[in-house]
Amino acid sequence: MQFASDNWAGVSPQVAEALSASADGFASAYGSDDVSAKARDALGAFFDRDVDVFFTATGSAANMLALSAVARPGGVVFTHKDAHICVDEAAGPESIVGMKLHGLQGRQGRISANELLEAMATYPADAVHRGRGLAISMTQATELGTTYCVMDVAAIGSIARRNGLILHVDGARFSNALVSQNVTPAAITHESGVDLMSLGFTKNGAWASEMVVSFRPDLKDDLTYRHKQMGQVFSKNRFAAAQALAMLKDDHWKVLASHANHMAMRLSDGVASLAGCRLAAPTEINEVFAIIPTALAERLRQAGAVFANWSSDTAEADVAPGDQEVMVRLVTSFATTDDQVDAFLDVAGQAEAA
Amino acid sequence: MQFASDNWAGVSPQVAEALSASADGFASAYGSDDVSAKARDALGAFFDRDVDVFFTATGSAANMLALSAVARPGGVVFTHKDAHICVDEAAGPESIVGMKLHGLQGRQGRISANELLEAMATYPADAVHRGRGLAISMTQATELGTTYCVMDVAAIGSIARRNGLILHVDGARFSNALVSQNVTPAAITHESGVDLMSLGFTKNGAWASEMVVSFRPDLKDDLTYRHKQMGQVFSKNRFAAAQALAMLKDDHWKVLASHANHMAMRLSDGVASLAGCRLAAPTEINEVFAIIPTALAERLRQAGAVFANWSSDTAEADVAPGDQEVMVRLVTSFATTDDQVDAFLDVAGQAEAA
Amino acid sequence: MQFASDNWAGVSPQVAEALSASADGFASAYGSDDVSAKARDALGAFFDRDVDVFFTATGSAANMLALSAVARPGGVVFTHKDAHICVDEAAGPESIVGMKLHGLQGRQGRISANELLEAMATYPADAVHRGRGLAISMTQATELGTTYCVMDVAAIGSIARRNGLILHVDGARFSNALVSQNVTPAAITHESGVDLMSLGFTKNGAWASEMVVSFRPDLKDDLTYRHKQMGQVFSKNRFAAAQALAMLKDDHWKVLASHANHMAMRLSDGVASLAGCRLAAPTEINEVFAIIPTALAERLRQAGAVFANWSSDTAEADVAPGDQEVMVRLVTSFATTDDQVDAFLDVAGQAEAA
Amino acid sequence: MQFASDNWAGVSPQVAEALSASADGFASAYGSDDVSAKARDALGAFFDRDVDVFFTATGSAANMLALSAVARPGGVVFTHKDAHICVDEAAGPESIVGMKLHGLQGRQGRISANELLEAMATYPADAVHRGRGLAISMTQATELGTTYCVMDVAAIGSIARRNGLILHVDGARFSNALVSQNVTPAAITHESGVDLMSLGFTKNGAWASEMVVSFRPDLKDDLTYRHKQMGQVFSKNRFAAAQALAMLKDDHWKVLASHANHMAMRLSDGVASLAGCRLAAPTEINEVFAIIPTALAERLRQAGAVFANWSSDTAEADVAPGDQEVMVRLVTSFATTDDQVDAFLDVAGQAEAA
Repeated sequence: MQFASDNWAGVSPQVAEALSASADGFASAYGSDDVSAKARDALGAFFDRDVDVFFTATGSAANMLALSAVARPGGVVFTHKDAHICVDEAAGPESIVGMKLHGLQGRQGRISANELLEAMATYPADAVHRGRGLAISMTQATELGTTYCVMDVAAIGSIARRNGLILHVDGARFSNALVSQNVTPAAITHESGVDLMSLGFTKNGAWASEMVVSFRPDLKDDLTYRHKQMGQVFSKNRFAAAQALAMLKDDHWKVLASHANHMAMRLSDGVASLAGCRLAAPTEINEVFAIIPTALAERLRQAGAVFANWSSDTAEADVAPGDQEVMVRLVTSFATTDDQVDAFLDVAGQAEAA
Repeated sequence: MQFASDNWAGVSPQVAEALSASADGFASAYGSDDVSAKARDALGAFFDRDVDVFFTATGSAANMLALSAVARPGGVVFTHKDAHICVDEAAGPESIVGMKLHGLQGRQGRISANELLEAMATYPADAVHRGRGLAISMTQATELGTTYCVMDVAAIGSIARRNGLILHVDGARFSNALVSQNVTPAAITHESGVDLMSLGFTKNGAWASEMVVSFRPDLKDDLTYRHKQMGQVFSKNRFAAAQALAMLKDDHWKVLASHANHMAMRLSDGVASLAGCRLAAPTEINEVFAIIPTALAERLRQAGAVFANWSSDTAEADVAPGDQEVMVRLVTSFATTDDQVDAFLDVAGQAEAA
Repeated sequence: MQFASDNWAGVSPQVAEALSASADGFASAYGSDDVSAKARDALGAFFDRDVDVFFTATGSAANMLALSAVARPGGVVFTHKDAHICVDEAAGPESIVGMKLHGLQGRQGRISANELLEAMATYPADAVHRGRGLAISMTQATELGTTYCVMDVAAIGSIARRNGLILHVDGARFSNALVSQNVTPAAITHESGVDLMSLGFTKNGAWASEMVVSFRPDLKDDLTYRHKQMGQVFSKNRFAAAQALAMLKDDHWKVLASHANHMAMRLSDGVASLAGCRLAAPTEINEVFAIIPTALAERLRQAGAVFANWSSDTAEADVAPGDQEVMVRLVTSFATTDDQVDAFLDVAGQAEAA
Repeated sequence: MQFASDNWAGVSPQVAEALSASADGFASAYGSDDVSAKARDALGAFFDRDVDVFFTATGSAANMLALSAVARPGGVVFTHKDAHICVDEAAGPESIVGMKLHGLQGRQGRISANELLEAMATYPADAVHRGRGLAISMTQATELGTTYCVMDVAAIGSIARRNGLILHVDGARFSNALVSQNVTPAAITHESGVDLMSLGFTKNGAWASEMVVSFRPDLKDDLTYRHKQMGQVFSKNRFAAAQALAMLKDDHWKVLASHANHMAMRLSDGVASLAGCRLAAPTEINEVFAIIPTALAERLRQAGAVFANWSSDTAEADVAPGDQEVMVRLVTSFATTDDQVDAFLDVAGQAEAA
């Protein structure tokens, strides 16, 4: 009963095969090979427009690379207080990128346009000592397993455009969000004002397939040199490209993400129906955030379930855990099976009955 | 006839198999899994002592991570002017690590103890404006395909120790150097005063198996946080660890490096015996640096040989190319075949006869 | 009626004379001269112990220099959300120092020990992705014109010590705080666990007399090189030293700060006694934060009073301004006269009567 | 006999008076006051065009601020190997600005157009790993006391323009160079392709009057925020502005620089005429670089002369010191008297006679 995280799973057979198939023969280094070119073309098709692609080792690296292309003296990035760049990257965005992060509260993990505008207003052009807003970073899907619809993104995108800010999207679980929203990658990114994004296929079912995708040709040079400067240019880049190609071929990403989301939905419905349990946020992707009795959490772990307790700060006050309760995160993946979900719900059901 | 670089080759079958074998099942993320633990143990056995290991995406990232653990205000790193950190990392060591690089001339790509001491003397303790020497970075094998013997390393190591400097080794082709020197990893690193190194198995025959290996437990915290901060902590780290394990199992690294070195030696002997051709540096690993007639280089390329022209700055004055000559680099790898070498030498031989 | 800020005043006659007196003759550069040595000795006497002193151009520079000596990968600094390093230094602490700032709420501008401990607990040693707490930065006096007593500082100091964090104090208005608390500099700094501080005499009555004072000899080298690296080492340092000497001679700093505080107290009592006016925070130094009718603020400005509207975020909810009210900051200095205070209160009184 | 450096002198009476005259009264902070406005206007008149001005504490800070406005990922700055940014700023330009410095050899302290073009050619657009040239930094006058004429600057300026590089001038002794070249500030800066410069009046006769002057309005925002971010915005900025105003009033800078240059010329002629003594470089400003007998240097010091031995690396091979010789630097200033020069030459003459 593995629900710790989607990065605990291995890789899908198609990705493994793609890697093995690329093992032989010579290819030019640093992304100048045919496989890398094919991957860039496939990503262009995925987004239905020309894009610049920079493969990285991790999503953190992609986030920092993307923000580095925007960095200027006094720079401030508006993002959600629970965003990965705020709490999971060991101050890299501050130290390595050199920007201040302004964390917004936003309900259910989402930035709200109103709060964003209020925050931006605290950096007037004549207050040099405050710094200046340079970028907005949204997480799609959010750290609380929720998503932004096209209208949400377009609203933020238009604020960014009107104020000369860059709009970045952290897409570590972008595939799951696409399946959940059932929209095209184009509609919910560059067509809605997104300038560049961190796109991740790792949690989706690859080994290490993270990248910055840029819809802004004018940022290409800064991204290209920073990519090298950060030590993120794989010499045998085809291994990264081959994984991306495998994920994009025949919408493999969608097949895997749909399964993961479906497993989460089953888990979510099951948990929500248990007495004494409730959701901390609506389940929209492959993550379930629930408030459950502390005793139940213990029982489940005794039975072999693996999952994380979650900081209740990220939930809304009205669903904050009570005395005998704990907030937990259950993550499914391409590798999650119906049996694992059934087993989890059975144990929970028995605990309830007991 | 592929002699462009050892990072143009794919991966050895053993590495490919190891990856496929790791594809299934769940494992905890960020290096806390069993495969990663096994890899760390295997590296400890390789170096015959406890070590701290930090997997990275590239050798550049490993170099910057290692130097970051040493960085302090006013820091200067002594290294060879042709070192990778000086000319191949897009100013990352300056910009991201924040240190000045002091490039030494050193014959045949090697730092000389005398020149090092002279350079260190230009940073006296009372000259704050100059900065202060914090580290020495050697490349083993060097960018000119030469190696340092144990006594060379020990001499530099003792200078580092006496002056309170950290000794770092860039080991992108460490396997080839070990085979060439026929010594143990321990003897030519920590037993000779090396504090931490960048160890690379990628050119040796893996997809992406680069890491910082530290022999200095006191640097562990800085390395740990910087590793995360640089976006270098793979979530599914077992894919990196599995490659390292495959390279270490039954000294697979040695088998591959021995073959690559042997191919280079054959190539070197053949080229050196051609009229009008001579070596720019002794061939000690899997790289041949030669000065050949420009016409011959063209002939070889017409015949399909792939190799790079090299900046003659890196060679000694006494072997600098003449008017109708060009300096070239020929790199072999685990994937180089006798046929490729024969074909190259045949074409060259015919050109000579013509 | 100048109450905009204490940095709008010029310099005290004693400081002006000290500068003129130093204008002639030759002296060695970069702080190796006699005047600089005398200033360091005087600062040692001021703090009743040996200290390391690094003169800087501004308080922001002093803050960044001090924090730079503590910076390590993944570093986090705990401070008040309204601290100068958080909101007035254009992201320099993030970008140039390379640390994340964790802003605490703290009532009346003060960090509370409880909130600090809670915040520190969110950076457990095993959560590398969060970063690690390295320092605590207190502002004495605070940005809301309040002060920490010796017991307050000692409480934070003991938390810092127990957890291996460095305790930094931003003392841009340290003189005013000393007068307000009526304690010795030693008692409220190193004797209470302060490791290093930014000490400012500029607002107190000098042109530019800011410095880092370190009680930690082990930080001297990092401070020394960073001082140079930041471009903060004055070549003719005696001009900075002469100002500090003038401020320290015969407790000139105390005479000036006492006057400024006294003027603020008169202003504070007068404003608090006006109908429809109240204090947003207790007046403890040379700053008055008050909530007054918007109409009154306008009337005062029409009459020539110069003062700033202040963000009410910095005040407590229970004293937040209402519809027709505004929060203002009135700052006095060594140059404020009784006449200015009387004039201000007269205008306010007439407005009230009207 | 004070010839150690021009920053050993105090300040000219006019500067001292200007400061005292500004001591009283209130003025808005951070450069928004009238004196600062007057200084900016005066600098505009000095350069015969609109300029942006950013006062800093030191010349090092001005250099780093100027280069920071140009910094981009992978950035390289071409400059002379002996430039202040290369050897006297404790690696700040690398660590704080984040750029690699490419040091050129250049005869007599000057960058040569040919060597510059050769160096630039080693950073081709398709070699990302090398980084990219972003700026050229010239020192006027140079570290060897020589100057660039208008044609020299224009030649470098046109290279910069054609290649899209920024041209920066480090003008720590710009006044002395202007007097030596007898040209207008405009002719030898923006009219010759200079984009921005570090302008220093400190060595010229002020306490601390250093600034970045920008001829590029498009760089104003980056300079403005970086200026604040570096902790270089004086709160009571009128003290810096008043010094600059005093230096510019009635060409006071020129009077002081002319005297200093004249004193150096007398010293230079005298030393050059001594048996066994010769100049290491032509004396063009207020610095004399000479090769003299080691015994003579000792005799002079015994007699009370203060001056520095200089690294002979900075001189040309053909004037390198011999066995019993040492290279020395003699610096004059506005405060140097004929008596000091006579005394020095008398001692030297007697030593020669002996």
